[in-house]
Amino acid sequence: MLSQNQVKHISALRLKKFREEFNQFIAEGHKLVTELMNSPFAIAGIYASSEWIMANLSLVREKNIPVFETLPGEMERITALATPSPVLAVVEIRPVYDQAVDSNGSLKGLNLALDDIRDPGNMGTIIRIADWFGIRAVFCSGSCVELFNPKVVQATMGSIARVPVISCNLAELLALKTGSQDDYPVYGAFLEGDSLYAQTLTDRGIILIGNESRGITPELERFVTRKIYIPSFGSSAAGKAESLNASVATAIICAEFRRNKF
Amino acid sequence: MLSQNQVKHISALRLKKFREEFNQFIAEGHKLVTELMNSPFAIAGIYASSEWIMANLSLVREKNIPVFETLPGEMERITALATPSPVLAVVEIRPVYDQAVDSNGSLKGLNLALDDIRDPGNMGTIIRIADWFGIRAVFCSGSCVELFNPKVVQATMGSIARVPVISCNLAELLALKTGSQDDYPVYGAFLEGDSLYAQTLTDRGIILIGNESRGITPELERFVTRKIYIPSFGSSAAGKAESLNASVATAIICAEFRRNKF
Repeated sequence: MLSQNQVKHISALRLKKFREEFNQFIAEGHKLVTELMNSPFAIAGIYASSEWIMANLSLVREKNIPVFETLPGEMERITALATPSPVLAVVEIRPVYDQAVDSNGSLKGLNLALDDIRDPGNMGTIIRIADWFGIRAVFCSGSCVELFNPKVVQATMGSIARVPVISCNLAELLALKTGSQDDYPVYGAFLEGDSLYAQTLTDRGIILIGNESRGITPELERFVTRKIYIPSFGSSAAGKAESLNASVATAIICAEFRRNKF
Repeated sequence: MLSQNQVKHISALRLKKFREEFNQFIAEGHKLVTELMNSPFAIAGIYASSEWIMANLSLVREKNIPVFETLPGEMERITALATPSPVLAVVEIRPVYDQAVDSNGSLKGLNLALDDIRDPGNMGTIIRIADWFGIRAVFCSGSCVELFNPKVVQATMGSIARVPVISCNLAELLALKTGSQDDYPVYGAFLEGDSLYAQTLTDRGIILIGNESRGITPELERFVTRKIYIPSFGSSAAGKAESLNASVATAIICAEFRRNKF
């Protein structure tokens, strides 16, 4: 049975203000929680039904994580989901910048930079895509939806346990990287430019993805060394979709970067 | 100013039961509403702020659509959105099956078949993807989320005005098409099979996409003539994303079918 203080603390973590104050976030569901348990994230506590605890006793003991049993109806008081799952974890936020760079501070491989992605579903889905396609790190502008928003965490489907996601000033990052010795190509996703299919795509660089409605801001566009677009197909008298969803565009672009390298 | 009956009628259309009873659905936002006004859909009525009406007077007059002014605060009473937009349309549902087949009843070009897609965002996004990539028609199993659910309508971002979406028995459709003289290839998206990149993709056929968690049902799998999968890239000790979101997978597959044909 949960204490009033536990209910109050966990519920507070739905809000960014308290996530920042306590340096913790919540994750729910068997798959997501077990992936986090098997990752470098530290788990402050697990709140679960007796059935879940019995079924996962050896894992919980092995990891030495404090576990609290929730009675029927109690999960509804702490969950951020419309339909609660049998398990919720309170997880410590941790810095991951060092995973994204080598010992010189240089970027490694292929990276994403997200300029003002606002929709939590898009953000989580993009992290899942990054995981699938072996993207080294995801850099986010400060105006992006926060990584530890419960909707983002859930939409990553566990990929948050593996992909380094770093909030930073993208203009500074791009200025540094494109002006440095290890000159990095910066690809920008636009609705014009060069077709994604009509050029050589490198296995290192930064792919810049813009806001859902406004695209890439002019401030960042000036760092883009190659504008790329995804061609649409066919046409009808009735017109055409004007654009693709930001996460969908990211997926098609990442797949194409990797296509000849599988 | 809206009447009580108008508020009651429009609010009722948030529910499938009343959409089926009245054969109408709602669409909101300038872009979506104007795209529907310029499409074969018949608009029963437009509910908008005086500013929107003034700015769009010639279009509204040209189309001869009944327009009702909403006073400040009234849109909140009829909207299905968290943040209401200045314009809402009540639209007549119409059958579109004839657009998907030629005069012999044969399918045309490349089509999608959705087996039990439940998430409204995925459904709407897939229709937007179909529009972008010139997919001829989207066939949906009866268990898919309903096309005219407000969240689906909004997620199509206007593509609902152009893409024929047909709810039908997929087993019957596939049995008919794969057994017919105009033998149609049926591609199925799986987590195994042939790499999407290691084969010739035709410009006609059906691409079958399965449920978000369970994939393609065995009942439909037997009609699949080519199992395709999207390879993941790289690996780490921490593991890998197990799958991609259904709409993301659809996008990558559609892009690859069209890649050499732009």
